[in-house]
Amino acid sequence: MTALIIDTDPGVDDAFAIALACASPEVDLLGVTTVFGNVGLAMTTRNALRLLALYGREDVPVAAGADRPLVFPHPHRARTVHGRDGLSDLADTLPERETGLANTDAVSLMASLLDRATEPVTLVPIGPLTNIALLLAVHPSLTGKIERIVVMGGALAGGNVTAAAEFNLWSDPEAARRVLVEEEVPTVLVPTDLTVRCPVDTAWLDRLGASGPRGTALVALTSVYRQHYRKSLGRDGTVLHDAVAMAEAISPGLLKTTPLPLDIECGQGPGRGMVVADRRAPAVREELGVRGGRRVDVALDADLDTVREFLLERLCA
Amino acid sequence: MTALIIDTDPGVDDAFAIALACASPEVDLLGVTTVFGNVGLAMTTRNALRLLALYGREDVPVAAGADRPLVFPHPHRARTVHGRDGLSDLADTLPERETGLANTDAVSLMASLLDRATEPVTLVPIGPLTNIALLLAVHPSLTGKIERIVVMGGALAGGNVTAAAEFNLWSDPEAARRVLVEEEVPTVLVPTDLTVRCPVDTAWLDRLGASGPRGTALVALTSVYRQHYRKSLGRDGTVLHDAVAMAEAISPGLLKTTPLPLDIECGQGPGRGMVVADRRAPAVREELGVRGGRRVDVALDADLDTVREFLLERLCA
Amino acid sequence: MTALIIDTDPGVDDAFAIALACASPEVDLLGVTTVFGNVGLAMTTRNALRLLALYGREDVPVAAGADRPLVFPHPHRARTVHGRDGLSDLADTLPERETGLANTDAVSLMASLLDRATEPVTLVPIGPLTNIALLLAVHPSLTGKIERIVVMGGALAGGNVTAAAEFNLWSDPEAARRVLVEEEVPTVLVPTDLTVRCPVDTAWLDRLGASGPRGTALVALTSVYRQHYRKSLGRDGTVLHDAVAMAEAISPGLLKTTPLPLDIECGQGPGRGMVVADRRAPAVREELGVRGGRRVDVALDADLDTVREFLLERLCA
Amino acid sequence: MTALIIDTDPGVDDAFAIALACASPEVDLLGVTTVFGNVGLAMTTRNALRLLALYGREDVPVAAGADRPLVFPHPHRARTVHGRDGLSDLADTLPERETGLANTDAVSLMASLLDRATEPVTLVPIGPLTNIALLLAVHPSLTGKIERIVVMGGALAGGNVTAAAEFNLWSDPEAARRVLVEEEVPTVLVPTDLTVRCPVDTAWLDRLGASGPRGTALVALTSVYRQHYRKSLGRDGTVLHDAVAMAEAISPGLLKTTPLPLDIECGQGPGRGMVVADRRAPAVREELGVRGGRRVDVALDADLDTVREFLLERLCA
Repeated sequence: MTALIIDTDPGVDDAFAIALACASPEVDLLGVTTVFGNVGLAMTTRNALRLLALYGREDVPVAAGADRPLVFPHPHRARTVHGRDGLSDLADTLPERETGLANTDAVSLMASLLDRATEPVTLVPIGPLTNIALLLAVHPSLTGKIERIVVMGGALAGGNVTAAAEFNLWSDPEAARRVLVEEEVPTVLVPTDLTVRCPVDTAWLDRLGASGPRGTALVALTSVYRQHYRKSLGRDGTVLHDAVAMAEAISPGLLKTTPLPLDIECGQGPGRGMVVADRRAPAVREELGVRGGRRVDVALDADLDTVREFLLERLCA
Repeated sequence: MTALIIDTDPGVDDAFAIALACASPEVDLLGVTTVFGNVGLAMTTRNALRLLALYGREDVPVAAGADRPLVFPHPHRARTVHGRDGLSDLADTLPERETGLANTDAVSLMASLLDRATEPVTLVPIGPLTNIALLLAVHPSLTGKIERIVVMGGALAGGNVTAAAEFNLWSDPEAARRVLVEEEVPTVLVPTDLTVRCPVDTAWLDRLGASGPRGTALVALTSVYRQHYRKSLGRDGTVLHDAVAMAEAISPGLLKTTPLPLDIECGQGPGRGMVVADRRAPAVREELGVRGGRRVDVALDADLDTVREFLLERLCA
Repeated sequence: MTALIIDTDPGVDDAFAIALACASPEVDLLGVTTVFGNVGLAMTTRNALRLLALYGREDVPVAAGADRPLVFPHPHRARTVHGRDGLSDLADTLPERETGLANTDAVSLMASLLDRATEPVTLVPIGPLTNIALLLAVHPSLTGKIERIVVMGGALAGGNVTAAAEFNLWSDPEAARRVLVEEEVPTVLVPTDLTVRCPVDTAWLDRLGASGPRGTALVALTSVYRQHYRKSLGRDGTVLHDAVAMAEAISPGLLKTTPLPLDIECGQGPGRGMVVADRRAPAVREELGVRGGRRVDVALDADLDTVREFLLERLCA
Repeated sequence: MTALIIDTDPGVDDAFAIALACASPEVDLLGVTTVFGNVGLAMTTRNALRLLALYGREDVPVAAGADRPLVFPHPHRARTVHGRDGLSDLADTLPERETGLANTDAVSLMASLLDRATEPVTLVPIGPLTNIALLLAVHPSLTGKIERIVVMGGALAGGNVTAAAEFNLWSDPEAARRVLVEEEVPTVLVPTDLTVRCPVDTAWLDRLGASGPRGTALVALTSVYRQHYRKSLGRDGTVLHDAVAMAEAISPGLLKTTPLPLDIECGQGPGRGMVVADRRAPAVREELGVRGGRRVDVALDADLDTVREFLLERLCA
């Protein structure tokens, strides 16, 4: 069993990631925490609850976290990508969950779950990294309980929300820097460089839609989202960023990772929120006197068909 | 009674501020939390415990907080100002406290104290603002329990640790921006522009030293610190920054404040960590289309002799 | 005789500065160059020509320079301060000059004038420092011909166009950094900290207006400008920033200067364009290991009545 | 005939680029200007003169330009790459040129050559862009004489001198921004993304070395440089960045370019000096409301064997 905590801002691809965790028998889903991002905190929290309800998960504690970034006012929402409600304007069609929010905040819930955990826990942040930065800053003694952090975010060679930056990291670059540069917990970063190479096509979506009511519901949630991705893909289909990261969280090694020193650009210029990954040869770094530093395992490759099949099989189950 | 929580990085002037709170009958000292700053977290925590022991305060819960800033590696220590151990190399001469640390972290202790408080609480951060930023970010629902925050820090017209910035805010500009710009809790900022106008001279120190063993101990702690301030004052004497802020926390209105829109420079250039206070005439701001924004009460003036007398009277009591 | 080159973006107070140079018998006005700033380059150039015509100076060569800052797009104009045409919407009432522009650009004109100069030349930039930065960067060998540079610009303790920055330096912080930090030419900086302490009142303006047609014309040009300064001064009157700097250029020592290490904040945050002057005690700088570096003579004080009288006497002559 | 002006900081690959221009019959080499960069200005100027002497070009005017970047102190040299003298410590083995420097500076020489040109001129800056930024800023009226600017510099997906930035643009990001973002002259950027895909191997170098004394001299100059590239290539051989750009300048269309909106990160963080190229689909940019802006033709592909053959054929002629 893999003990998981999901930190999320649903979001259509977040929906697929949550569904994947719910549908995976080896996952022990300890809790779900929410963060501002694709839409505001109230909506991401409502969406998380309903997505759990879709999978009958009344048992999983949910708590709301940050409604804004650590330091600067939060930039614009991704409403043109995910719809005004974050779920292609169909959040209301999902069932309501009977169990409401836990009587605590996101960071305290994560801290409490980690504190009580008897096995190492995998954190899967698939939104802005604000809650995770706060968790690690407030509770440094709990890092030993974290098996690894699997982050969906970042772009090494060209962003989506800006020319340089990917949405999740750009939404709170300071939090991303804390988590990806200043901390030492084993971390996998799943950037869009990989996720956009792993789109799913209409055949994939049709198979999922035919698999049952949950599959039908998930496919329905992609309606606005697909319109956006048609523009970048040049054809129908979609990109399930967060679900690709979740697949790695559930099945470690599914993605091929490279340990790289990272930094996050936190200035106010055109590079704000971008990942600066050092891909120079070690001998070149040494010649220039660049010191070692922490490395993050960046998922830059995978057997893409295997990933898509993994996702489809689980979600259809 | 004024319910107080002190967040501190002792530091010689922190020692005077803690002493002032302990010596003031109208203060209900709920807790003390520590933060990196003048020296590292282990030392600031040790120093806080011993200073409470000096005043026989075994009852006050103490918890250690951030050992580094929110986002960037922490800059250099203030060892040339406060001595290698933060207390003019005399920390070991203070009594040890029998009661150790609370079984929790700084942010959780503050949250718990606020949660249980039956009256509004004044927070008095006199070190880098890291713990306070974390508290407000993780526990937004508790801001209603905060009467006000009285911050020692910042410089409007020339810094100490750099040409532009004062040590506390410069140590974590991102945390300072969160607290002073992004939050809405009533806040008083006591900058060095005021505190350096309120130095104490050898006569003041002699009177304190003659007042009893605690006074003698406090004066002894200034030895290295006075050597530093002799350089900026041009004569013997010292500047008790944190104690001036604490005086305002204990006796609201002792300092004269002006409500000003603030920003904190968080770039990596020469202005890093400085306070940008907007002192332009309202009509000029309006002409330029500058929007309103939050205002912080900046303590820019006081009856300086009254402040010095307040400090001396309490500390000699 | 003092050989002068004025680099200017008229501008109402620029008009007074140009008039002061024209009206001062000890000035050998070698040339006038123009720069974008208070209004666009076409207007500042037209205004410079007409102001020289007002003083019958057909002989002074004029060339147009930079229409934008060195690196970033130029920020907004100062039309609410100086009027839409830079001269309180009265530029058209000034006489046209018969002699047009020199057949060259501003930087080349300055270089040529310096090259031919037989005595050291004082440069008086009273607009954004773009042309001066370009001159020094392209023609380093000519710096030996420069007696000193007297710059109007900067604010040490609170700006006008932003909370932190004064208009001229903020209009091109990168150029300002080049001139004030990276170069070694003897330089006087006349910041608004001093110029706003030296306003002229209605009596002063009335005496000037009664002195003759040129005085009448100058006073007329203040109409929009005075409305702006009424907001910051709180009464009628005006602030002649550039003329104060010009007075120092013409009469060295009229202002009292302090040599200070400067830096210019070139980041994109709230401090952009501000002057960071290091006013810490030398012993404190040494304790912190701050290296020496270049010093600029910052005009922080003056006998204000003497300055006002100097201006009035010359302009009435 | 293609009229060329080369702006250069030799540098081993600069040497190959200069040689290529000298050896190309369709090139009318109007002038060579020098800039700080791989080594200091005195050395790059000396090297440029000697390289021209190697090709018997006493006729080409040479002038020295910027010895530092526009705004900030210049960062470290590339001595570990190019040798202490910029030419693998073999500059002294090259012949001296009899004709010394032109009696002017680099920017004025370029301006004068452009002014007198009867056909459009191609500028080929293969060092930091300082001189070119100054030229365009001081002489905007001459841009009509420029056919195009072919810049060697930049990296879209990972730098060499830092994790993010390529040496030339990183050496003066502010100048690069002026040239690549703020100006409108048709410009081709040849980034390392392409040049490192076009290394030459020992067979190529052996053929060049066997072609005659000039070929032998050029190959000899690669000795230190090859040691560096062995580390990044993982085998003997070398990368002739500047010569690839020069090939495009001489034979327009040899490289395949894509018009892309660019920005240059000028902050002080880890992205400093990097090129931010917007490679998002136009429909995605439109959805996000990103305005059009200038595009630069970025050379991202080429028939690499054709390029190598072009270089070899010319250099062996």
